[in-house]
Amino acid sequence: MRLHRLKRLFVGSPLPTAQQRHERLGKATALAVFASDPLSSVAYATEEILLVLILAGSAALSYSLPIGIGIAALILIVITSYRQTIRAYPQGGGAYIVAKDNLGVFPALIAGAALLIDYVLTVAVSVAAGVAAITSAVPQLLPYRVGLCLLAVAGIAVANLRGVRESGKIFTAPTYVFVVSILAMVGWGVGGAAFGLLPAAPYAPHAPGLEGIGVFLFLRAFSAGCTALTGVEAVSDGVPAFKPPEAHNARIVMAWLGAISVAMFLGITYLAYDLGIVPGGDETVVSKIARRLFGTGVAYFEVQAVTTLILLLAANTSFADFPRLSFFLARDRFIPRQFATQGDRLVFSNGIVILAGLASVLVVVFRGDTQELLPLYAIGVFISFTFSQSGMVRRWLRLKEEGWAWRMWFSLVGAVVTGIVLVTLAATKFMEGAWIVVLLIPALVGLFLTIHRHYDTVAAQLSLEDVAPPPPLDGTILVLVGDLHRGVVRALQYAQSLSPTAKAVYVETDPERTHRLEQRWGKWGMGVPLIVLNSPYRSVLGPLMDYIDQLQRQRGDNHVVTIVLPEFIPAKWWQQLLHNQTALLIKGQLLFHKNVVVTDVPYHLKH
Amino acid sequence: MRLHRLKRLFVGSPLPTAQQRHERLGKATALAVFASDPLSSVAYATEEILLVLILAGSAALSYSLPIGIGIAALILIVITSYRQTIRAYPQGGGAYIVAKDNLGVFPALIAGAALLIDYVLTVAVSVAAGVAAITSAVPQLLPYRVGLCLLAVAGIAVANLRGVRESGKIFTAPTYVFVVSILAMVGWGVGGAAFGLLPAAPYAPHAPGLEGIGVFLFLRAFSAGCTALTGVEAVSDGVPAFKPPEAHNARIVMAWLGAISVAMFLGITYLAYDLGIVPGGDETVVSKIARRLFGTGVAYFEVQAVTTLILLLAANTSFADFPRLSFFLARDRFIPRQFATQGDRLVFSNGIVILAGLASVLVVVFRGDTQELLPLYAIGVFISFTFSQSGMVRRWLRLKEEGWAWRMWFSLVGAVVTGIVLVTLAATKFMEGAWIVVLLIPALVGLFLTIHRHYDTVAAQLSLEDVAPPPPLDGTILVLVGDLHRGVVRALQYAQSLSPTAKAVYVETDPERTHRLEQRWGKWGMGVPLIVLNSPYRSVLGPLMDYIDQLQRQRGDNHVVTIVLPEFIPAKWWQQLLHNQTALLIKGQLLFHKNVVVTDVPYHLKH
Repeated sequence: MRLHRLKRLFVGSPLPTAQQRHERLGKATALAVFASDPLSSVAYATEEILLVLILAGSAALSYSLPIGIGIAALILIVITSYRQTIRAYPQGGGAYIVAKDNLGVFPALIAGAALLIDYVLTVAVSVAAGVAAITSAVPQLLPYRVGLCLLAVAGIAVANLRGVRESGKIFTAPTYVFVVSILAMVGWGVGGAAFGLLPAAPYAPHAPGLEGIGVFLFLRAFSAGCTALTGVEAVSDGVPAFKPPEAHNARIVMAWLGAISVAMFLGITYLAYDLGIVPGGDETVVSKIARRLFGTGVAYFEVQAVTTLILLLAANTSFADFPRLSFFLARDRFIPRQFATQGDRLVFSNGIVILAGLASVLVVVFRGDTQELLPLYAIGVFISFTFSQSGMVRRWLRLKEEGWAWRMWFSLVGAVVTGIVLVTLAATKFMEGAWIVVLLIPALVGLFLTIHRHYDTVAAQLSLEDVAPPPPLDGTILVLVGDLHRGVVRALQYAQSLSPTAKAVYVETDPERTHRLEQRWGKWGMGVPLIVLNSPYRSVLGPLMDYIDQLQRQRGDNHVVTIVLPEFIPAKWWQQLLHNQTALLIKGQLLFHKNVVVTDVPYHLKH
Repeated sequence: MRLHRLKRLFVGSPLPTAQQRHERLGKATALAVFASDPLSSVAYATEEILLVLILAGSAALSYSLPIGIGIAALILIVITSYRQTIRAYPQGGGAYIVAKDNLGVFPALIAGAALLIDYVLTVAVSVAAGVAAITSAVPQLLPYRVGLCLLAVAGIAVANLRGVRESGKIFTAPTYVFVVSILAMVGWGVGGAAFGLLPAAPYAPHAPGLEGIGVFLFLRAFSAGCTALTGVEAVSDGVPAFKPPEAHNARIVMAWLGAISVAMFLGITYLAYDLGIVPGGDETVVSKIARRLFGTGVAYFEVQAVTTLILLLAANTSFADFPRLSFFLARDRFIPRQFATQGDRLVFSNGIVILAGLASVLVVVFRGDTQELLPLYAIGVFISFTFSQSGMVRRWLRLKEEGWAWRMWFSLVGAVVTGIVLVTLAATKFMEGAWIVVLLIPALVGLFLTIHRHYDTVAAQLSLEDVAPPPPLDGTILVLVGDLHRGVVRALQYAQSLSPTAKAVYVETDPERTHRLEQRWGKWGMGVPLIVLNSPYRSVLGPLMDYIDQLQRQRGDNHVVTIVLPEFIPAKWWQQLLHNQTALLIKGQLLFHKNVVVTDVPYHLKH
């Protein structure tokens, strides 16, 4: 009861089904909603590239430019490719759906597992990066990093459990302010550098590196930057949320998204190069850039604040994506069906709670450190890219819709490029933590298949198909008594109301007590005959089971024995601890006994 | 089921009640059984005195001699006093019983709470000291101290859950070997010193102290040594275990115990003084003495091994004392009645498990450190001494039995002296941890009284006295269906076998599903009428409750509604996680509803 009130306080009152409605998003709002996740990666993608390059000395940092351009090209390829998917799946074409539709169940499950993992990582990475933006500005908060991350996860989870009704409005302002802030910063930086308006950079000699810049290090830096692509697939999942014509609007938003993404990512990467930013320490690269350009003033704090905000919104998008994918997987019976039921606030509460729990575990295990989390990230999303684009290739070839020939090429290029990046990612990040994801995906797929098989066998065992209606049942009612009190008297009356042939059973552990019971039975036995069973081991259960077995052997298969248990219910829950749990034990034991039904007859105490 | 087999493996098969027997102990065996606890304190009592004195510099260590003599005198006073108690309570006179008999319930509960705490501490302290004896000899094991302590507690607990059948035999050898070893060591040391046979002591200049030796420090050292008295009361609790004449034999054993205790304690204290042992570091004082006298050879290791053994046996005695006292408290309804039931191995399993759990918590919290645990110790036992002796004074005055006048004086001296020591203990050890015990005792007494009151009100509410037999009950049977499958069909049949007027209830969340259900009802409804309830909030429970309320309003107070729940039971426990726990929820909610009985009809799946 207490727990119930606590839940209401945080989550709010239940909502009727009739209130379910589908908010449709205009293009500008939709861009804000779907962009927070892909755009927020600007906050860490450049930094990741630099952190790899610095291993070859600060002179190697300039390689960030070609890498940045490569990643920008990758973004454009993926975006173009997904615009084809949107056209084909106006009802929403997430990787799981597209793969299941065109490649079969197994690839779909791989994509599903990869995405579930990535959604959890999105929450952990975004929250950790958001907190890093805070601690870059206020280093005194550094020791509370993990606590702040957990607080953020919990806050977002509670907001989602309540159901974020006006989600579009929440997103619009921070997203556009973020885009404007970052682009303004880039403009200020590039312009200032061109006209020599910036404060002079502190002298920093080029530090020697630990290793030479080789192909592997270059590829590792490229892989590290691929986190910039996470989240671009979100638009294709959410096409039905657009105002009509849905697919058309979604394709336009996708194009905008690509352009803004590339502009911001290239801008930050160029600024970091141009200002000679050296990554590392407890301050993020974006914070270093902003501090160099603006000093530690209002403009600097504005950039940090809006970066934090956009990262928290990015984490929030997973709280829509994860429960939605869980719903599809649960509907197809690959994960427990509890994920398919809406809570009383019309949201998929189980998915939200599980996501928050898993993300919290990650935050604690990796101590809220973005750098440690990122190597696990992006693998999942590239698996989903590759499977989704491959599925589209199959689809164009199969259906041969209008313009299929040249559209197929877009998808094919997307599939091949993302496939190559995927292999690069797995290879270069394997030792740093990607192995966890590589092992986890087949384990999850195995779990999905096991669960699916279980649901199938249950359905087969419960099915009424080709079954003849069974013959009627008959039964015996036995009241288990250990004493005589008001609760027992009530149970005896109840048994009598069910059947005039009900009997009472008493397990004897002490002959003297039996004697006393038998003496009082005349007045209080309610006319129910009393059977006394002997118990040499003081166990109540053993003799009872023997008696039931004997009864069932006599009466055959259609005979059900009902055990009526008198149970008094204390007024307060803690008082239950002061009484023997014999009833619970007996129920537990008899649950697995064929043709036995156990019925508690509660007697409620008042204080 | 798995759990059950695991239990059998550790605990053994159940024993029939008829096997219960009372082992009677001869004097020599009894001494061994009851002496392990009081004698084992020799392993740490002297050390505790020295650790306080060292605060005033190593020159102050010589004050250990007068303190040791004072404590020896205290031992003799308490022993003499308890010999009177044994005479008066041949059926066993623990402090709880004596206090309840002569002083009333409240003092008895204080004594009981104090003793329960002390028994837990005995286990923790003895095990920690036993492990300290091991780590003194093998310092490499020091990092595993807490683990070793927990292992020891678990081992002793399991042995006791099995029922230590031949306990006398287990005790005899280690106790006597310990007594002989320590006395031989004392003899060797004193003799060797007298004849100058010992190896020369390493030169150690007197270190200056942190504080001067004042009255408070002296009293603190005395208090610290009082741990030597813990356990001497055990004989008086266990009089019925002696061979007849029980009281006579117990009194003789008590006298022996006093003599040996004093000899060993004074011997060790003198040796520590004579050899100039400085306490501290990770080695016990007894280990230092043995190493000085014998070198690190066979004799040294023998002393350490037998010390460990006697300390583990001392911990073991609490596993008899705690459950026995719990039994008395539970029988008098001051603690949950589960403590009064014997397990299937004829031991009070609940008391054993709780004791082991609490002692483990102490070991972990205090990191297995004897020195940190000891300030909490001895307070409890001195409370019980004081109350028990005061009770005896009341008793002599009240009953005026033969020789009451001079016997009363023994008890009075005991009560006054132990009372003064108790106040000294509480005052000097308060800040070091005794405050925990001082706060815990009234809290426990409050808990005892709350529990007692609860049992009284329950008994009154269940009593059949002055109650007229209630009128017979009638009822309605409702089968709650969510679907149609073999499990539901079985539940419908079961309901029909109970009553031809049974009905089925379906809560509608989706009109289309209702329609499908109604179509199949003709063939599979078994002729049971179907009632459809509407649910705007998707909750199954709400509409059902409303329906039940409505029914009960129509039918009045003697009408019981039986809700039959079809439930399929998966073949493996983990599969349960894959299904909705609706049945559990409904049962939980309806448990508190008056005049409602919930019956599960299980349908067992095969795989």
